[in-house]
Order: sequence, then structure tokens, then C-alpha cells
Amino acid sequence: MEYSAPPNVLMELLIVPDKILMGPGPSNCPKRVLEALKNPVLGHLHPECLKIMDDIKVGMQYIFQTKNPATLCVSASGHAGMEATLCNLLEDGDILLVGVTGHWGNRAADMGRRYGADVRVVEAKLGESLSFERIEEALVVHKPSVFFITQGDSSTGVWQPLEGLGQLCHKYNCLLVVDTVASLGGVPVFMDKWEIDAIYTGSQKVLGAPPGITPMSFSQRALDRVNNRNSKVKVYYWDINLLGDYWGCFGRPRIYHHTISSTLLYGLREALAMVCEEGIPVTIQRHMDASYRLQEGLKKMGLKMFAERPQDRLPCVNTIHVPEGVDWLKVAQHAMKHFKVEISGGLGPTAGKVFRIGLMGENATTERVDMVLYVLKESIQSTSPNFSFEKSKM
Amino acid sequence: MEYSAPPNVLMELLIVPDKILMGPGPSNCPKRVLEALKNPVLGHLHPECLKIMDDIKVGMQYIFQTKNPATLCVSASGHAGMEATLCNLLEDGDILLVGVTGHWGNRAADMGRRYGADVRVVEAKLGESLSFERIEEALVVHKPSVFFITQGDSSTGVWQPLEGLGQLCHKYNCLLVVDTVASLGGVPVFMDKWEIDAIYTGSQKVLGAPPGITPMSFSQRALDRVNNRNSKVKVYYWDINLLGDYWGCFGRPRIYHHTISSTLLYGLREALAMVCEEGIPVTIQRHMDASYRLQEGLKKMGLKMFAERPQDRLPCVNTIHVPEGVDWLKVAQHAMKHFKVEISGGLGPTAGKVFRIGLMGENATTERVDMVLYVLKESIQSTSPNFSFEKSKM
Repeated sequence: MEYSAPPNVLMELLIVPDKILMGPGPSNCPKRVLEALKNPVLGHLHPECLKIMDDIKVGMQYIFQTKNPATLCVSASGHAGMEATLCNLLEDGDILLVGVTGHWGNRAADMGRRYGADVRVVEAKLGESLSFERIEEALVVHKPSVFFITQGDSSTGVWQPLEGLGQLCHKYNCLLVVDTVASLGGVPVFMDKWEIDAIYTGSQKVLGAPPGITPMSFSQRALDRVNNRNSKVKVYYWDINLLGDYWGCFGRPRIYHHTISSTLLYGLREALAMVCEEGIPVTIQRHMDASYRLQEGLKKMGLKMFAERPQDRLPCVNTIHVPEGVDWLKVAQHAMKHFKVEISGGLGPTAGKVFRIGLMGENATTERVDMVLYVLKESIQSTSPNFSFEKSKM
Repeated sequence: MEYSAPPNVLMELLIVPDKILMGPGPSNCPKRVLEALKNPVLGHLHPECLKIMDDIKVGMQYIFQTKNPATLCVSASGHAGMEATLCNLLEDGDILLVGVTGHWGNRAADMGRRYGADVRVVEAKLGESLSFERIEEALVVHKPSVFFITQGDSSTGVWQPLEGLGQLCHKYNCLLVVDTVASLGGVPVFMDKWEIDAIYTGSQKVLGAPPGITPMSFSQRALDRVNNRNSKVKVYYWDINLLGDYWGCFGRPRIYHHTISSTLLYGLREALAMVCEEGIPVTIQRHMDASYRLQEGLKKMGLKMFAERPQDRLPCVNTIHVPEGVDWLKVAQHAMKHFKVEISGGLGPTAGKVFRIGLMGENATTERVDMVLYVLKESIQSTSPNFSFEKSKM
């Protein structure tokens, strides 16, 4: 048979620009992480590969502050953390309660419905976190088997308090699933002390590894639920028992579940090593300090945070009202064109309404904060010459 | 609250050995691919990232020999190709017919059942491909809506002929799904001419990119089936309409579906560029020649291929009977320890019965074939000193 010709476009050179990624993620990977990526690929069951997986497991146990043996990664993007936790814990007809503080609650609700759950919602006022009183009311009314909430919603920049929430859910025989994609490493997380049953995060945010591999952890209570299912977990690829046997979580012999990307393991391993070297309390403080400095600078410019109450503000992804008379898209394009700096617009409920500035990983420093403040101001001035920062302050 | 201490093991250096990967995959990545991986991470909607996705799309259209606009990647390992094709094409109660030529048919049957399908099986004699007569009989008896088959089963080393199979399936109003994880680039594939409706492959086999990202393609007939579903696709992450909108497949505006790993895009893009530069007919011939040379060498040593009929033998993953008196595991361990060469044992139905030698990507050369023949012979001799190659020939 005749073959069609190869495409010319692949004869061109691959050229990748170096940008400063200060949107909601991915953030920049440290040089050490990028250098690790070019190591030769290893087989998915080679002892050296399993050793790196073990390193990642203990690193994530430390960063999640958990002793759960079922601490591992799923080989896909952060969305897969949401998929895997919900898919394992839900069966047809189960009631899933979703706490909505932005886009990510809506996404979890969609996934829950696809998995056959009866989805109920408790929604925060836009730009605010949910009070435990409202959550408890909803637990009483809906009697869910699983409650899902996002610790840091990257669309609204809202930080949801979690301390005591696991205990509250367990009072109503409900499991607690927490999305920490945009928060872990920037704010405190105590999986065990807070009795969180399933958790996941993004590799490409505070941790500073490339995306494509997603750390997560399941409590014993969550595993008991999985092991008492009436039906098989609907997706082989997300099945925590198979995945856990590959990651050596249950004391059983390792199995071949899928071909893990050793490349992504190298990057994540090095990123976790850097967090461990700094120490998680120091990492968190650095992110808090950076966000505080950013907020002070924005205030001086007369710009207003989207989350009105200071305690609701996620330090990793800062949402800022787009002032009247300013075109957010032009600002973002200007910042990218002239400074190679990524400043993002909104997402979902905040689309068109906010700027989002990410302070994550190696971008959570005084220098980067001062730089992004300068870039934002200059980009607003250049694209909206009639806009008055002075007037905005009043 | 008090934090537990960071683990010491992450204070150690990351050291990755350089091996020659001649098992069933992953294969070695060319230097050019590894070097590309350390490029800085890009945002998942940055124009430069979308451009690389477009390059990969046309590269895969060439290698699959298809004009399908819905040619894209799913951001997960090869297993996700199986998940995504079955998840999109199956609804509760649909009849899925699986052609089993080894381990991978059994895996597809498991996935199909999890997605709620009524799974039927047509099984080949171990070590052989399925005849079109048997497939047609099964199509008549079971009236499936989807037929799944693996072109190259890496557990048995069986090469399944496909020319005319799409036409046969369509005669019975059945869609054809083909797994080419271990075959694409090593044997001919003509997606359009053979009327294949959904196809996927592994990045880490013949193509020589790292694992973690999986190229696939859907025909218009397959998309029509998806768009006529009575229920939503059960998994958001595999949903071809959302994924296709992210990859710009349907002429609609690009959406944010998930955070793609630009790192893995760089590696795959460079790997595809190398296949395009060589030209797919040349790549395939090189794999055929390498396997022929390997088979000749094995014959001279008195070893026997697992697939008895020469036309059933997949050139990319060669399965060889473990001769009596030889311990396959000791041989594999010896080859790794003394030569850093991976030779694998069996999987699923061939566990303990065969050696598997992969000739994929940059390992499909005369030099690598001669080397692996030497390593196999020396490793058998060293671990089974009483084994006689001369006697084995008789």
C-alpha cells in the first residue's frame, strides 16, 4: 500500500521560550528539576524506579502530614486526582455533597454525576469560604456518603479552612475528600490530624514539578469504604487497590498496573527533595509572606482583592478585581509580550472579572512579587492610558 | 500545630542508571528526545504549547495513516488509550466483543465490564492470531456494537492481521477498536484504508518517547456513535468531545480540559519528528529486518519462537520459548547485572514460559540484535551450565 508523505512541520526545530509563569499554574520548575528530566527512561518495575516511587511516597507523606500507607501518585494530570478519589469512593446512587467555592466544586459535581452519584451542592457566596455551620446543615439535610471540598480554589482564590472538618464529616458517617491542587505547600495541611479521607494535589503548582503525575493519599477509613463496595470500581486506571499494589502500599507483592513515566518521577522526586530540604513550615511561611507583600503592593496601587475577607485569601493564587476601564486580556497580553510574565484572567465564575497572580514554588519570593507588581502596573498603564491609579484608590 | 520531620531519604542524590531496554517497553529514548525534556514548562494554553500539540497531531495522522481530525493524545499511559476508546464507545448493556490473542484482550474485557458492557470473547489459540472466519462467526453470533483487538500483543508476541477487518466489522454495524501500543511503527498500519474506528498506541515503544502521553485517533463513524449516546461519557478525563476541543479537533474554540504535560509533549514531538525524518516505510522495514535477523540468530542457537507460524510473529516484541532446564529469571537477572541489558520474561498467559526481546525504536538495529543475541546466549550459559545449545537444536 501507498503511504502518505510525512508532514513538513515536523522538520522544523523545536523552540521553547523561557517564561515566568505567575498565573494559576503550572509554575516554573527549578533548574534542578528540569535537569533531572533528561535522565534515561527506566522500566516501570525496575528496582531503581520502584525506589524513586518509594522516595516520592515518603516525601508526600511528609508534605500531606500523613502516615497513610496508601500514599501514591496517579499517572495523569491534577484532574485525575479528582477522578480517582471520586471514582473509588462513589457507587451508583451514592449521595455526594459538594462544597462549591468556585470552578472546582462544579467540576467535581460533574464528575460525580458521571459516576452515577446523586449530587447535592452547598455553595459559598462568591469570593468567600464556606462556614462549618453551613456545611453541617447540608450534612444533616442531604446525608451524603462523601463530602468534597477544595482547600484552595484557583478560580476564585478562596482559601477554605479545614481544621475540624474531618471530625465534623465523620460525626455524620461521611467521608471527606479534599482537593489541594492549588494550595498544598502554600498553606498548612494536616491530613491525619484533620481526618481527611482522600486528598490529592498538583505536581505543577507549589511543588514545582512538571504536570502529568498527581500525588494523592487515602485514609484507612476511605480504603474500608472501597473494600466494602458492592460493585467494582468503574475505571481500571483509577482503581486504588490495583494502583496501591503497584506502589507497594498494602504489603502485597508489587504488580504491573500501568507503565509509569519515570521521566515525571524524576522531576517530582527532585521537587519533593527541595521542599524537604527547605522544610514544609518554611515553605508555607515563604508563600504566606509573598502573598502578604503582594497584597500590600496591590493596595498601594489602589487595586482590590476579589476575596474580601483577608482570612479567605489563598496565598498561592491571588485574585484581584479587574478595575473598571481596564481590559484584562490586553494587560495579560502586554505582560507576556514585553516581560514574558504570565498574569492570568479569571476562570469559570470569575472569567472576565479578575486577574490571577500565582505565587508558587520558586516564584514565591520578594523579588518575584516586586517584579510582578511592576509588570502589572506598567501593563495596565500601557494598555489603559486613561486609567487613574490615584482615582482607583479613593 | 507540630509538623513531623522531613524524610532523610530525599536528602540523597538521585542517580539513574543507563540501561539498554530490550524488553517489551519502554524502549530507550534517543538523546534528542531526552534533551528536549529539560525545556522549561509551558502553560497548557500557551500558543507555543498549542503549536506543539498541532505538530503532534499531524505527526500522528501520518504515522496512523489517517486524515481524522480527532487525532490527539490522552494525558496518561498506554492503558489510558484502552480506557478512553472503550469509555467513549460503550454504554451500559452494549455488547463488546473482544478478540483475545494474549494478555491485552483480557485487560480490555475487564475494562469493558467495568464500564457496564456485556462482554463476549473470541479467543485465539495461544501463540496464534485470529482468523477472519472466526471473527466473522463471532460477529454473527454476538452482534456486538464494538469489536476490540490488539494488533501486536506484547505478552504473546502475536501479530494480528487487520487489512479488511474494518470493512468486515462495518458489514455487521460494529465499530473496530485497535490497540497498536506495541506494534505501531514496527508493522504497517493504515487506519483509514482499513476502516479502523478508534486506535491508540504507546509513546514509549517504537516511537521512543517517554511514557505518560498516549496518541489516539477516532474516525467520524466513532464520533457519530459518541454523539448519539443516551448517557454522558462516564469519565470526564477520557471524554473525547472535551479532549478534542482542547486539542482543537472539531473547529470549535479551544477549551481548558486539563493541564497537559508540556514536558511529555516535547519528548513526543521530537520522537515523532525522528520517525517523520526516517519515513514510516523505512522505520517499519528496519524493525522487520531486525526481527528477521534476531529470529535467524535464535534458530542458530537452537531456540524456538513462541509464535509458531512466521506470519504471526510481531517484529517489535519477540517471544521465545524458555528451553527446558533454563531459569528465565536467572537469565534476565544475569543480563541486567553483567550487561545492563533488559531481557524480559512472559506476562499473563506466557508468564514463566517465554523470553521477550523488544526491538523497538533505536534498538531495532543490526548492532543491537547481534548484541542481544550474544547477551542471551552468554546469560543462558552462565546460569545454566548444564544446558546444551547443540542438544536443543536437535
